Amino acid sequence: MVQSQQKLDRVLVRVQKLTPEKADQLIWVRARVHTSRAKGKQCFLVLRQQQFNVQALVAVGERASKQMVKFAANINKESIVDVEAMVRKVEQKIDSCTQQDVELHIERIFVISQAEPRLPLQLEDCVRPDGEGDEDGRATVNQDTRLDNRVIDLRTTTSQAIFRLQSGVCQLFRDTLTNKGFVEIQTPKIISAASEGGANVFTVSYFKTSAYLAQSPQLYKQMCICADFDKVFCVGPVFRAEDSNTHRHLTEFVGLDIELAFNYHYHEVIESITDTMVQIFKGLRDKFQTEIQTVGKQYPSEPFRFLEPTLRLEYTEGVAMLREAGVDMGDEEDLSTPNEKLLGRLVKEKYDTDFYVLDKYPLAVRPFYTMPDPNDKKYSNSYDMFMRGEEILSGAQRIHDAQLLTERAIHHNIAYFYYVTNTLVAGKIKSYIDSFRYGAPPHGGGGIGLERVCMLYLGLHNVRQVSMFPRDPKRLTP
Amino acid sequence: MVQSQQKLDRVLVRVQKLTPEKADQLIWVRARVHTSRAKGKQCFLVLRQQQFNVQALVAVGERASKQMVKFAANINKESIVDVEAMVRKVEQKIDSCTQQDVELHIERIFVISQAEPRLPLQLEDCVRPDGEGDEDGRATVNQDTRLDNRVIDLRTTTSQAIFRLQSGVCQLFRDTLTNKGFVEIQTPKIISAASEGGANVFTVSYFKTSAYLAQSPQLYKQMCICADFDKVFCVGPVFRAEDSNTHRHLTEFVGLDIELAFNYHYHEVIESITDTMVQIFKGLRDKFQTEIQTVGKQYPSEPFRFLEPTLRLEYTEGVAMLREAGVDMGDEEDLSTPNEKLLGRLVKEKYDTDFYVLDKYPLAVRPFYTMPDPNDKKYSNSYDMFMRGEEILSGAQRIHDAQLLTERAIHHNIAYFYYVTNTLVAGKIKSYIDSFRYGAPPHGGGGIGLERVCMLYLGLHNVRQVSMFPRDPKRLTP
Repeated sequence: MVQSQQKLDRVLVRVQKLTPEKADQLIWVRARVHTSRAKGKQCFLVLRQQQFNVQALVAVGERASKQMVKFAANINKESIVDVEAMVRKVEQKIDSCTQQDVELHIERIFVISQAEPRLPLQLEDCVRPDGEGDEDGRATVNQDTRLDNRVIDLRTTTSQAIFRLQSGVCQLFRDTLTNKGFVEIQTPKIISAASEGGANVFTVSYFKTSAYLAQSPQLYKQMCICADFDKVFCVGPVFRAEDSNTHRHLTEFVGLDIELAFNYHYHEVIESITDTMVQIFKGLRDKFQTEIQTVGKQYPSEPFRFLEPTLRLEYTEGVAMLREAGVDMGDEEDLSTPNEKLLGRLVKEKYDTDFYVLDKYPLAVRPFYTMPDPNDKKYSNSYDMFMRGEEILSGAQRIHDAQLLTERAIHHNIAYFYYVTNTLVAGKIKSYIDSFRYGAPPHGGGGIGLERVCMLYLGLHNVRQVSMFPRDPKRLTP
Repeated sequence: MVQSQQKLDRVLVRVQKLTPEKADQLIWVRARVHTSRAKGKQCFLVLRQQQFNVQALVAVGERASKQMVKFAANINKESIVDVEAMVRKVEQKIDSCTQQDVELHIERIFVISQAEPRLPLQLEDCVRPDGEGDEDGRATVNQDTRLDNRVIDLRTTTSQAIFRLQSGVCQLFRDTLTNKGFVEIQTPKIISAASEGGANVFTVSYFKTSAYLAQSPQLYKQMCICADFDKVFCVGPVFRAEDSNTHRHLTEFVGLDIELAFNYHYHEVIESITDTMVQIFKGLRDKFQTEIQTVGKQYPSEPFRFLEPTLRLEYTEGVAMLREAGVDMGDEEDLSTPNEKLLGRLVKEKYDTDFYVLDKYPLAVRPFYTMPDPNDKKYSNSYDMFMRGEEILSGAQRIHDAQLLTERAIHHNIAYFYYVTNTLVAGKIKSYIDSFRYGAPPHGGGGIGLERVCMLYLGLHNVRQVSMFPRDPKRLTP
């Protein structure tokens, strides 16, 4: 066991760097035993490091004894080993490895960390495309088994690619906004009043009282706008106590949130957000092609299409398209999930884009703080954004006038309002309403679900695949 | 009220851009009324935009009526206005404004958002250095009043600077690590077992069961290492149900967490972290000098000093220095807060640095997953890092062997272990222990408190100043 007994000068070469330029050099590598196969006086190993692997060989001879071959053959899969080996060019490309032009001739081998002999699941079963190998009776790994053994499931090339891409989405999001002059803020997750009106909120014991987990940073990012930060974003967990067991709902997910003051029209906000999304799409396309291809091997999908500038449709246009396709729905009715998906397909057919904005939602289906449309009280200055026909962002111009905000909260029966001797008092959301009493600029924003963006960009079908340790009503571990 | 009635072509000029080059141009500005003072047929306003402000004037004459002057004089402080004005160079510099060389001659003025006439606190009272103005009987604003009215308190130049610098710390942290090949991960905050052994943890109602709020991403970032991510970081909230009402404890704060596999010795980890800290210190020094100066006006402090490479002392050396200074303490005793601070002062005197590492803590005072020292069972491969004598990071080589980890957990009476027919079963932290059963590289890391880094870098004295919406046992709002 490496307990930091000594500082060695020994250089470890990365598997990725094992190329013909290193031929005939004696080097050290630390890697996992991906597979091992003994064959007479030889033992073939595949050594893996993240998404890279190389073939290695221990053969009885001058440099290795029979015992050593036996020892190597008995190392359990997934163990971590240090090997000293000569790099040799091979005549014929090794198709099964990423390092196809060389192999390692092992002279010494040490086990750094021994894996148990029986793995709860096999990596090769985890990366096999759906349906493939069924006829051979090969094991397929269901999602719960994967998630129960997430540490092993995350070692697959597919998982490595998914989460490297996810890390990239966060970075692209932040870098784009930082370049636009946004400030990153940190908002509290433990709050004294349910931010979205009281439903679907988790309760926390807080010393002698109780509190809630924030369903969004909504109120706090707005308070930052009222506090003159002008343009803010935050990346952090949001919590929804919704008992939904669907492919796209989690009880805890990562919100990429944006809020900004605008000058005259909330379309300035929409443009800022859609431009950010486009920068993310371009960044992924240009910098994460390897990851996209890797995921595509297991889960094939069409490349993600987007337009510049982003397509913006009004809600009434969307409803008209649906009606034309035979859907029966009212003007002020919200979009159901099947209708959202259908509309996504119609938009894709007509405009050839997997990303678009649906603008001017009916006021009745939006939260109390949404700014009503100035011309038609039935509608509002609010929008959703969709990727491959599924919602990834909900946003709006927010009401920045304390009086109107109070009226709308009352209209929505937000329970925290009550009268004290003829004066209307905003109870638990008082500090929120108060934020608008001392001068507030017009502003708007939106919240993006990180996992949904990754899932839909990659054309995956379950949000649990893009959440490292997903939480849903039935899953709290690992 | 701006309800997005129309899209105007009108360009709004930023206050910061109001310089003599704009002289004799008619421009539009949107800003807050910082102060207003009527004087006969004139009204002087100071218009503020974030940390910038400019003098403006409405005077009865060709372009403005008496009514307009009266109207301007009656606009409440902190209201947001749009003004059309001629930029004029001034003969004498205006010392009280950031834009010293010009003033605005207002021709039109509209109120975009009216502030209420009485503000709960005055901005000028919020930025006055401690002690100054006391003799004039000027109001000072205590911390609770500030925090109760945080939206206004955050508008001060000091607050604007603090949180822009905080945004910078996060960015420098992530950029440095991304450049070193780290991957950003997102870890769950709702967990099924208390991560640090059960004390000081918040309980959450989770559908029909209960769960906890993560006290750190510790176990998850380690699981990522076991899942071959090699080097990971995360930025997110951590929760401590500690009933501590001190200057440096919060119940929710932002953790900057690092974890990485190393080759031979955990000092590789220390070097990676200290280098990251040094990159942050340098970035702040080079890119946030304005913010540092601004905060220094209200809260003067010595510039932050650091060495390259970072000073690393062993725990026994620290104890020896304290004993030499007259402190009576045992070899295996933890550092008390006063002793930490005293040691910080002694180190500063001797080595002229505000940042150092104290290495090789007694094993007894560290968490169960800390790797024991290979040569002396009393000590461990663990370390704290200090800024201006206060701890900002705690870290260690972690045990990566399931057997040893189990033994140490039993030794620490982690309650989740029990025997089933002679087999030791790890109960609620089973998935954690299991992570190490299938090959785990040696690794280590640490967790940094974002707020403490900002507080101590700037030489502030209360962590609530650097938390936008702080949470402590007595504060849950706003």
